[in-house]
Amino acid sequence: MSKDSKLKARLPRGFADRGPGDLAATERMLAAIRETYELYGFEALETPLVEYTDALGKFLPDQDRPNEGVFSFQDDDEQWLSLRYDLTAPLARYVAENFDQLPKPYRSYKAGWVFRNEKPGPGRFRQFMQFDADTVGAGSVAADAEICMLMADTLERVGIPQGDYVVKINSRKFLDGQLEAIGLGGDDKATKRLVVLRALDAFDRLGIDGVRERLGAGRRDVSGDFTKGAGLGEREINKFLSPIRFSLESRSLSLEMQLSNYYSILNVMRNTIDNDVAAQAYTEMIELTEQCEAAGYGPERIRIDPSVVRGLEYYTGPVYEAELTFTVTNEDGQPVRFGSVAGGGRYDGLVGRFRNEPVPATGFSIGVSRLLAALKAVNSPLLTAEKPLPLVVVTAMDREPERIADYQRMVAQLRGLRGEDGRPLLRAEMYLGEGRFGAQMKYADKRDALCAIIQGSDEKGKGLVQVKDLKLGAELASIAKDDREAYLRKQAEAQFTVPEDELVEGVRKVLARHS
Amino acid sequence: MSKDSKLKARLPRGFADRGPGDLAATERMLAAIRETYELYGFEALETPLVEYTDALGKFLPDQDRPNEGVFSFQDDDEQWLSLRYDLTAPLARYVAENFDQLPKPYRSYKAGWVFRNEKPGPGRFRQFMQFDADTVGAGSVAADAEICMLMADTLERVGIPQGDYVVKINSRKFLDGQLEAIGLGGDDKATKRLVVLRALDAFDRLGIDGVRERLGAGRRDVSGDFTKGAGLGEREINKFLSPIRFSLESRSLSLEMQLSNYYSILNVMRNTIDNDVAAQAYTEMIELTEQCEAAGYGPERIRIDPSVVRGLEYYTGPVYEAELTFTVTNEDGQPVRFGSVAGGGRYDGLVGRFRNEPVPATGFSIGVSRLLAALKAVNSPLLTAEKPLPLVVVTAMDREPERIADYQRMVAQLRGLRGEDGRPLLRAEMYLGEGRFGAQMKYADKRDALCAIIQGSDEKGKGLVQVKDLKLGAELASIAKDDREAYLRKQAEAQFTVPEDELVEGVRKVLARHS
Repeated sequence: MSKDSKLKARLPRGFADRGPGDLAATERMLAAIRETYELYGFEALETPLVEYTDALGKFLPDQDRPNEGVFSFQDDDEQWLSLRYDLTAPLARYVAENFDQLPKPYRSYKAGWVFRNEKPGPGRFRQFMQFDADTVGAGSVAADAEICMLMADTLERVGIPQGDYVVKINSRKFLDGQLEAIGLGGDDKATKRLVVLRALDAFDRLGIDGVRERLGAGRRDVSGDFTKGAGLGEREINKFLSPIRFSLESRSLSLEMQLSNYYSILNVMRNTIDNDVAAQAYTEMIELTEQCEAAGYGPERIRIDPSVVRGLEYYTGPVYEAELTFTVTNEDGQPVRFGSVAGGGRYDGLVGRFRNEPVPATGFSIGVSRLLAALKAVNSPLLTAEKPLPLVVVTAMDREPERIADYQRMVAQLRGLRGEDGRPLLRAEMYLGEGRFGAQMKYADKRDALCAIIQGSDEKGKGLVQVKDLKLGAELASIAKDDREAYLRKQAEAQFTVPEDELVEGVRKVLARHS
Repeated sequence: MSKDSKLKARLPRGFADRGPGDLAATERMLAAIRETYELYGFEALETPLVEYTDALGKFLPDQDRPNEGVFSFQDDDEQWLSLRYDLTAPLARYVAENFDQLPKPYRSYKAGWVFRNEKPGPGRFRQFMQFDADTVGAGSVAADAEICMLMADTLERVGIPQGDYVVKINSRKFLDGQLEAIGLGGDDKATKRLVVLRALDAFDRLGIDGVRERLGAGRRDVSGDFTKGAGLGEREINKFLSPIRFSLESRSLSLEMQLSNYYSILNVMRNTIDNDVAAQAYTEMIELTEQCEAAGYGPERIRIDPSVVRGLEYYTGPVYEAELTFTVTNEDGQPVRFGSVAGGGRYDGLVGRFRNEPVPATGFSIGVSRLLAALKAVNSPLLTAEKPLPLVVVTAMDREPERIADYQRMVAQLRGLRGEDGRPLLRAEMYLGEGRFGAQMKYADKRDALCAIIQGSDEKGKGLVQVKDLKLGAELASIAKDDREAYLRKQAEAQFTVPEDELVEGVRKVLARHS
């Protein structure tokens, strides 16, 4: 094949490859999350990555233009299939399909890949992992309270300390009530409601004045672009914001200040709500937090925040968001709060799409790579706890078949080394490339090996083998050139010869040095 | 919505849901495999589930009929994407794209879902998991020998004992040489070669006479269906089969007999091969097994079997297959060998599709659900080692908000219980449904709970709580009715009352009884 006709090796846009460090860290994080979910009685579930498109609540895509947002394709029966875009819709399908066999309420957890057919961007992937926990068949606020405590326990278990996170609670019904109170109830006002909620959601970027503009006539940003507002009058804006404003304005305060303001925020809410739906939602949220508090999860960990807006259209009651409150540096070098890593809410309508009875449900979802980034930011002990076992590279100095067999024997012997607890002590590799000695040492360096084993024909003839301590070897360079004695002493330690049948002891000596 | 307009909840054809038992077992099996791969210096890698279709070596599907075998769809750039059908093609893409940064040789492992757009059938899924290990950039037979030893170690690590498996080695070059020797070399004979290899692969079903018929004119099976043969003459058939026949016929023998025949099989091979390519492949296989033997992996674990045919078109040298030799009962109630659980081979051309230099590579793949089935068949200690923690259900006898808060407090307290090693001792759930006492007890049974906690308003008034040992309770039924004293004694043990603040001690007592 000519050079030009070669295929180009390209990772698809919006997808990622991952190496050993991230994978090991993710593995440990997932195990810790799983352990926490299980303590609460949640049970593992796995559904396939593919569902019938209609089960995902999407309409059939037309042939030429797959449905916005999801990757879709047809199977041999001409039925439309889609890659799932979250883990909630597949759970609803699973529960509906297996309803009679499941315990009710049914607590389940699932970790898995989800896909979005969207324009990728920085930190915006088309394949990413979520880790969900859901309780299906429990309509009471006790189930929501449990989910909030589970969120708190999970964050602490993976290494986010108390004080570095808060689980914020709001209610879709509270916001609906507030919207109804200013005349934005009813199906015909759905678009306007969306404009209001989006404005609220943009508070961190726009500030309170910006939100007010977007609730009113509209807002022109610094670039001159104009965003049309919801067209509310001054009175409606004030009424809508009255129970929310204090909470919005507390966001930028320190955690201590937020906490000392908390009961005032609740007071303001109670006094300014004048709509039944919102009032009932408020009572429900109070009940939720009181249950949490009875179980030891006070407002320093779980608290009401009427300004939280969560986007998913299927929420029907309480919504929750786990926000990390510590500061990191953003791309522009500015300190910003880390922000949301998990969220969820009550979705009483989703299973009911398949069944003739209503099936209440509540749950939440962790963004796995986002949480991993957070653990790196706080230097979680979970990430640093385990290191890979030390690596020994057996070099291949000679290439005759019987010599290669010798090296294979050595490497198998080293690989079989076990500690007193029966656990392996090291990883061992034979050099498998074509390179000569220099290339083999470079390989050992690149692999971050602790030591190398060398047996050329000379050593073989004498029944010997050399053990080279690469860590000590690296320190040789730093010894002052004039201290010849120290240099030679260290050199002798760093590379020494042992009888063939004492190879294991030689390697143990190096392991002991660096353990 | 009317009954008929409800969506039907359907798992897509050829896909599977999985519950806690299988997931926990798979998790432990994957961890054991990972540990083994790492001892050999293999490093974790993860690539996305989606690749550009051309990178998978498939041609662009036409719009109406996605490419045979793979699920394909277009992204917003109109580029064709496909769900990967194995882990080897994505590895080749990854290595080619990141060639300069990788250590060479590069050992990697990856576990992940692969997809086949094929008619599903019993045990034939459209989404399944593979666990691969590959060495890229090593052309020597030492790399192949290492893969074979890794296969053996992996099987033993997950609980398949020596004697219950064999890693069989053949070579694509050996079969090619044998085909060439009977005039089936060259591009124009590709179809005929395929007919021959398929006939060989069908030996277990057809026996030696059936294979001979399929190599010759053809074969009519019991149903009367005729399969056209390769059209070889008697002389060609004998020549082709001469080094293979003895190996085929040994298959049905006991492991001991197979082993005692092994060197005779090698002798027959050496004496009957009269083609250079096949002879060279034979020498290579001998070298491979001698390296394994030097490292302690003799023919009882790893041996040459010239009758092994592995389908994938990209193999270029040695191929390997791990076969489990113990017997299980098939769907027709007949004893059959468990058969293949893993396989692989050398594929020197796959990375080269992307690059201007050849990049040799070798590796193998485990069928994860197939291996899990094998571990169940041998009752591997890996599956029985860990049981879920005992479960305590806190019943909800009263529904006033402050009583629910009481139950939440109890369940949080139980969940916080830790052993001396700091590990959790139990899982704890509050009953979250609407059911009365009977329904709650049924729920606890269904969840296989060890004990239930009960606090009605009576107990609450006296500051007490009841602990009900459900395991002991189940035994009550088996006590003879006339032994009233024994019954009452057991009943008192099975359900007892403790002061509220001694709830934890009460539960500990039940745990200790059954640990």
